[in-house]
Amino acid sequence: MSTKPSKDFETFPNPRPGREYLISIDTDEFTALCPVTGQPDFAKIFIDYIPEKLCVELKSLKLYLWSYRNEGAFHEDVTNRICDDLVSALEPLYIKVRGDFNIRGGVRTVVTVERDLRKKA
Amino acid sequence: MSTKPSKDFETFPNPRPGREYLISIDTDEFTALCPVTGQPDFAKIFIDYIPEKLCVELKSLKLYLWSYRNEGAFHEDVTNRICDDLVSALEPLYIKVRGDFNIRGGVRTVVTVERDLRKKA
Amino acid sequence: MSTKPSKDFETFPNPRPGREYLISIDTDEFTALCPVTGQPDFAKIFIDYIPEKLCVELKSLKLYLWSYRNEGAFHEDVTNRICDDLVSALEPLYIKVRGDFNIRGGVRTVVTVERDLRKKA
Amino acid sequence: MSTKPSKDFETFPNPRPGREYLISIDTDEFTALCPVTGQPDFAKIFIDYIPEKLCVELKSLKLYLWSYRNEGAFHEDVTNRICDDLVSALEPLYIKVRGDFNIRGGVRTVVTVERDLRKKA
Amino acid sequence: MSTKPSKDFETFPNPRPGREYLISIDTDEFTALCPVTGQPDFAKIFIDYIPEKLCVELKSLKLYLWSYRNEGAFHEDVTNRICDDLVSALEPLYIKVRGDFNIRGGVRTVVTVERDLRKKA
Amino acid sequence: MSTKPSKDFETFPNPRPGREYLISIDTDEFTALCPVTGQPDFAKIFIDYIPEKLCVELKSLKLYLWSYRNEGAFHEDVTNRICDDLVSALEPLYIKVRGDFNIRGGVRTVVTVERDLRKKA
Amino acid sequence: MSTKPSKDFETFPNPRPGREYLISIDTDEFTALCPVTGQPDFAKIFIDYIPEKLCVELKSLKLYLWSYRNEGAFHEDVTNRICDDLVSALEPLYIKVRGDFNIRGGVRTVVTVERDLRKKA
Amino acid sequence: MSTKPSKDFETFPNPRPGREYLISIDTDEFTALCPVTGQPDFAKIFIDYIPEKLCVELKSLKLYLWSYRNEGAFHEDVTNRICDDLVSALEPLYIKVRGDFNIRGGVRTVVTVERDLRKKA
Amino acid sequence: MSTKPSKDFETFPNPRPGREYLISIDTDEFTALCPVTGQPDFAKIFIDYIPEKLCVELKSLKLYLWSYRNEGAFHEDVTNRICDDLVSALEPLYIKVRGDFNIRGGVRTVVTVERDLRKKA
Amino acid sequence: MSTKPSKDFETFPNPRPGREYLISIDTDEFTALCPVTGQPDFAKIFIDYIPEKLCVELKSLKLYLWSYRNEGAFHEDVTNRICDDLVSALEPLYIKVRGDFNIRGGVRTVVTVERDLRKKA
Repeated sequence: MSTKPSKDFETFPNPRPGREYLISIDTDEFTALCPVTGQPDFAKIFIDYIPEKLCVELKSLKLYLWSYRNEGAFHEDVTNRICDDLVSALEPLYIKVRGDFNIRGGVRTVVTVERDLRKKA
Repeated sequence: MSTKPSKDFETFPNPRPGREYLISIDTDEFTALCPVTGQPDFAKIFIDYIPEKLCVELKSLKLYLWSYRNEGAFHEDVTNRICDDLVSALEPLYIKVRGDFNIRGGVRTVVTVERDLRKKA
Repeated sequence: MSTKPSKDFETFPNPRPGREYLISIDTDEFTALCPVTGQPDFAKIFIDYIPEKLCVELKSLKLYLWSYRNEGAFHEDVTNRICDDLVSALEPLYIKVRGDFNIRGGVRTVVTVERDLRKKA
Repeated sequence: MSTKPSKDFETFPNPRPGREYLISIDTDEFTALCPVTGQPDFAKIFIDYIPEKLCVELKSLKLYLWSYRNEGAFHEDVTNRICDDLVSALEPLYIKVRGDFNIRGGVRTVVTVERDLRKKA
Repeated sequence: MSTKPSKDFETFPNPRPGREYLISIDTDEFTALCPVTGQPDFAKIFIDYIPEKLCVELKSLKLYLWSYRNEGAFHEDVTNRICDDLVSALEPLYIKVRGDFNIRGGVRTVVTVERDLRKKA
Repeated sequence: MSTKPSKDFETFPNPRPGREYLISIDTDEFTALCPVTGQPDFAKIFIDYIPEKLCVELKSLKLYLWSYRNEGAFHEDVTNRICDDLVSALEPLYIKVRGDFNIRGGVRTVVTVERDLRKKA
Repeated sequence: MSTKPSKDFETFPNPRPGREYLISIDTDEFTALCPVTGQPDFAKIFIDYIPEKLCVELKSLKLYLWSYRNEGAFHEDVTNRICDDLVSALEPLYIKVRGDFNIRGGVRTVVTVERDLRKKA
Repeated sequence: MSTKPSKDFETFPNPRPGREYLISIDTDEFTALCPVTGQPDFAKIFIDYIPEKLCVELKSLKLYLWSYRNEGAFHEDVTNRICDDLVSALEPLYIKVRGDFNIRGGVRTVVTVERDLRKKA
Repeated sequence: MSTKPSKDFETFPNPRPGREYLISIDTDEFTALCPVTGQPDFAKIFIDYIPEKLCVELKSLKLYLWSYRNEGAFHEDVTNRICDDLVSALEPLYIKVRGDFNIRGGVRTVVTVERDLRKKA
Repeated sequence: MSTKPSKDFETFPNPRPGREYLISIDTDEFTALCPVTGQPDFAKIFIDYIPEKLCVELKSLKLYLWSYRNEGAFHEDVTNRICDDLVSALEPLYIKVRGDFNIRGGVRTVVTVERDLRKKA
């Protein structure tokens, strides 16, 4: 497996397909650049998902998050983007992504995006 | 952008219009004057909203909160006012504002205002 | 305003009549006498209410709680009484009062009384 | 009142019959003997109940819990027994008893028993 | 009773058959080997179940968890397996198993599996 | 023993005279009146002492602290007074009294008085 | 007493002159303006002192801290200034002032100034 | 080894004689009877010692603490007694025993006994 | 002032030269690359110093820490380097730098470097 | 580098020889077998050392701790042994090792070993 930052996820087959269970992943090692000032932003990222056929491989998730290190990213946008990229790669039954961004100007921001793909049918 | 206290909000377009997701903002840097005694009050402010077309720009939110610094404001009233001003500026789908005011006379007060504008239809 | 203990509340008009929002008040400065032994009891008091026409003025609430200082009061009874007295004075839409009494004989007691006056109609 | 361990409860009349409100009692001073090894077990006990006609007097509750001090008691059984004994004595509208037992062999056990006697009708 | 690691559970009869109550067990002493690298993994395990006819004996649960010590086990798989093995042995009315795995590469993973066997009927 | 508030302490003989060891007592159930406004003040009291011939009996300490309930007392003065009264009654080798008073006007005050009577010789 | 912001302290005579004891005061209600940007800064202030002849009256301390509300003040400077102003007003035996300033640019600053005036002799 | 309460300690040889190192043991499972009222008392016990030739075997320490279960014991006395019994059995270089007794009458008591046997020579 | 990462510090004159007082700065927004694997590392950095003639300007400190973002840096080395660079720029009387690095392989590392330049004379 | 458990440490040269600074390492992933019962024990291990010529490489430390996984080890002995093995490999100026072992029989044990090799001269 590569050890370079990458927007691609590696996946592996869900070991219990057909059962709805929850996988929760969190990290406090997310950093990107402010698209306006170019200065570093830091966040904690929390991901909850119910897999269908695929699970995300953890090291590739780490490389994915690393890929934002030198990119500009607005709080509201990047949280939605992480969610959508995971949906594309995993096609999970349900997913929630929360980005908890460090204080700027005395203000803390948390963005929470939730998609329930079971409702489609 | 101005760096003066101001009752006006700057906004930017919601990067994912059409999706209901939550933006949570909190600060422990709110201060106003007691309208009866003229002495300083301090509070933590917590804002949760689901944007429709617009998001609030964080620096202008900070300047907005700053604008109360030398104004008199009752706990119950100011929490409602922050909520209503954000509704006017953002027309969000949903908003909740909580003001958690410092102890006075051994008593702590928290005011919580919630408006769900999706129910209108 | 008086600065003597008093069973009367002062009130002020709800600044947003017609909107259901929550006012939460708590204090860890409640003390009364045990009606059996005459010895002091201590409690934390938590009040949540949705105002209709009136809000309780905080200083008068403090004087009200003070009025129990030299009275005997059973845990279960006094929590109900605080709730009922606030209902009489404020006629709120909803109220919850919680009394969290200090450990006696290795045992802690919490009494929670809730009244929803919106159900009457 | 006696100061000997006892399986009998003393009660007093509910000061607000006809109103559903919650009384919560907890202690970290419960100890019994392991029925297999005869060695001491320790637990925290949490009781929540909605009284109908009777409330439990706190000192007699303490003497009741004391009565297990030199008796053997399985975790699952004793938690159910405390619940049932309180139901017999108080005939409450609702009761929940939780026994949170100290770590044995690296494992902590919590047993939660809930009975809603309002459902009978 | 044996003191060797074992995949078999010992059980004892539920002392209150016919009543739905919750037994919660947790330990921070779970360790297995990473099936890819062969290196040790560590986790906290949380189990909640509603017994029907049988309860799990705690020491045998400890020996069961010990049996993973020198086995390879993926996070998602092992949490499901613990759940399924307990279902086979106890045939409970309901069970939830949560595996909270230590940080690897800056990322923490929690897997939660829940099975409600009351829904079958 | 009396159950009335009292400025007198009961004592009992130190069970290990000749050994310097520490007895630490704390309570969060101290209340007095503000000598200026007459309104209630609340504090936590922490006492550490090394006994010589006498130890303070705990119930009489509780009655002593109760005796301030309806007296006016400045923060700085009352903490010194508790210390001096215990010195008079116990003649300990060492004592420290700390009064940690609740927030008034946004400000918390802690007064710490320490007397080492071993230095006299 | 005035209720206006003021750089003057009111004092009262130390009730135990001749004894070295500690008075500790803290508040999380300090705010000033950044002298460079003019924007509000927030801090917690902690004061410890050993009085000689005078103690500071708490309400005047509150008015003193209030007086910085609309003044520019550097972190390092204002903490030294509070310390020096208290020394001028109280001539204490010892004083320590700590200013714990809110996060700016991801960085928190704490300034601690200590003066021991007993060393002069 | 016995599994009955016992005032005797089992010991084993210090694995590093000649080196001063610290062994710290604590439990929150100590209970005795109040010698005045006969009612149960509960405490946390903390032991720190530097061994010379012997270490205390943990199970025998547990049986020793168990032996107080149905004995009367004053707070100040029992803490000294545990310390002295360990000194007799282990002849350590240093020992500190702390008994942290549960709240009675709103008051918590902690007794700390320390003996440094290195000072004898 | 620049808003680019930079190894240069800006300084300003100490507002109280001649007095020894402590300035403490901490951030949880430090990230560098592992010099072996090239992957991101994260740390909290804590700085305490006693200024002599100069203080470090906070924004330039932030830009300095930012300058490590895309550099390789060993834990032990980078903590020493931050310390030495601050000594070169500020010539403080005393400085301590602590780097608290995130868990890798289940292991957390903290490096603490302290230099007292007052001892030179 | 190997990825097998090993009693050998890899080291690298201290990047700042001649300066006394502290390296602190901790892990909650230590497990060994009880030498009496053969059952698993778990501990947190804390290491502080001042390097002279060598630092321990973290991955080899992890492999070293792993090497105890299937060995019997008494609490007091293993903590001393980890300390002594690090001294042999690193010849540091100072080292402290603390082993904080999980609760067994209601009792927690912490063993602390400290060696200051600077005192030899």
